[in-house]
Amino acid sequence: MSLLEDLRVPRGRVELSSYSTRATPGVHGGKKRGHRALFDLGAELMELQTKLYAQREAVGARRLLLVLQGMDTSGKGGVLKHTVGLVDPVGVRITSFKAPTEEERAHDFLWRIEKAVPGPGYLGVFDRSHYEDVLIGRVRSLAPMTEIERRYDAINGFERRLVEEGTTIVKCFLHISPAEQKERLLARLDDPTKHWKYNPGDVDERQLWTDYARAYEIALERTNTDIAPWYVVPSDRKWYRNLAIGELLRESLKDLHLGWPPADFDVAAERRRLMDDTIGEAGA
Amino acid sequence: MSLLEDLRVPRGRVELSSYSTRATPGVHGGKKRGHRALFDLGAELMELQTKLYAQREAVGARRLLLVLQGMDTSGKGGVLKHTVGLVDPVGVRITSFKAPTEEERAHDFLWRIEKAVPGPGYLGVFDRSHYEDVLIGRVRSLAPMTEIERRYDAINGFERRLVEEGTTIVKCFLHISPAEQKERLLARLDDPTKHWKYNPGDVDERQLWTDYARAYEIALERTNTDIAPWYVVPSDRKWYRNLAIGELLRESLKDLHLGWPPADFDVAAERRRLMDDTIGEAGA
Repeated sequence: MSLLEDLRVPRGRVELSSYSTRATPGVHGGKKRGHRALFDLGAELMELQTKLYAQREAVGARRLLLVLQGMDTSGKGGVLKHTVGLVDPVGVRITSFKAPTEEERAHDFLWRIEKAVPGPGYLGVFDRSHYEDVLIGRVRSLAPMTEIERRYDAINGFERRLVEEGTTIVKCFLHISPAEQKERLLARLDDPTKHWKYNPGDVDERQLWTDYARAYEIALERTNTDIAPWYVVPSDRKWYRNLAIGELLRESLKDLHLGWPPADFDVAAERRRLMDDTIGEAGA
Repeated sequence: MSLLEDLRVPRGRVELSSYSTRATPGVHGGKKRGHRALFDLGAELMELQTKLYAQREAVGARRLLLVLQGMDTSGKGGVLKHTVGLVDPVGVRITSFKAPTEEERAHDFLWRIEKAVPGPGYLGVFDRSHYEDVLIGRVRSLAPMTEIERRYDAINGFERRLVEEGTTIVKCFLHISPAEQKERLLARLDDPTKHWKYNPGDVDERQLWTDYARAYEIALERTNTDIAPWYVVPSDRKWYRNLAIGELLRESLKDLHLGWPPADFDVAAERRRLMDDTIGEAGA
């Protein structure tokens, strides 16, 4: 399958209502097979990501940036736990963006984002991102409209720079229905071990569902570039969401065609040196 | 079992030669059962760490810092992948300390360490640490002896401060034999997919095995405090090393007696608010 093709948003106008939140494009079978497929994906994903990490000191080393956006409860945290959790944490840098601090607000909106971009060899993950500045920023009028309008091009310029330094950007919109969100919020209320995840403010934002959907449509339209395209991931089914994003990562890493870095030392000479040494042996 | 007791280094003089590198204290059975036990540990470790993360915004939130030290190939990377990899990456902060940069060397040795300590709710992991400054620092005379001597007390003062702000510190020395190291280095040479992990400099350091062992003994003696004790983890068997450190994490987290944070909102009122809303429903 190629989810990089199946889930990619076509250039041009975006109408979210035309995208299913429950479909499972590119995947046969249901939940049980989906869990199994994600488990099976783990080994390959680990190897591909280890190759990415292994070349981190090479000239022109590649990087991968996964951007996770979506309404509250759409499953950004679930993707971190179940999908990103499949690879070696040593090569992963997760940044969860909250409301900006006073210092961050005093800078351009990309200032704090720049500090979090993945270094060579790393898989960087943004749990929310610079897109919040044209989403809640737009819906809640957190900046003048001229400033909001300026940001779309600023984002495209910023992402172009990341791509030029060797970053592959995978931007995922986790698409859920308002009914599914309601169910998930109620489930959090019903389970005391989930109360810490519940924030009454999420229900306030929910009242603005239509405005957020429109803000997402505009953002997807204006930042859906060839070098950093958007993917809409149907996310009412958690198992599909986790599997689909794992598959997007797998395909993106595979497209880098990374091999194992060759030895930059004399293998035979090193073997001789080791065989000859008697460190720790009796009489040494 | 209580590995926090079994592996803890007693106060006083330390002679590493009296510690086995192949023993499996506290664990019954061999490799196969060990792998299974680590897998089984995963779910509990995930829940305990999620409780740690869940209370990150509470007053007096706790933190955990795992310090991994050991000779090259002792398995710091393996512990990150197989043990730390069991928990939710969103709550983990791994820092791999390399040779200090020019800027870092211009500051006190703890300057760069301070910037990497885990925030409230986080599991921080140091892959190498401030201890390098009294290990390679001592063996390679990277600082005057008076400075090296000063550092042991500085470390104790620093760690006391971390503990006072609510950090549990788990300091692990991954103990391998020189023969095991030789085998692991040769295995890396024999496998082209491992060449990127091989560094000829590791063999140079290996020549100083006795000096390093002595430097570890001194470090363990002088920084083995009641509030931040050392654990010696026999590490010739990889499965035991991974399992033992998982168990040290489990016991340390359990000792915090963390529950799920209670709701700081009116659960019934929130449920009514949600049930009443009709967002996205036909006619809404």
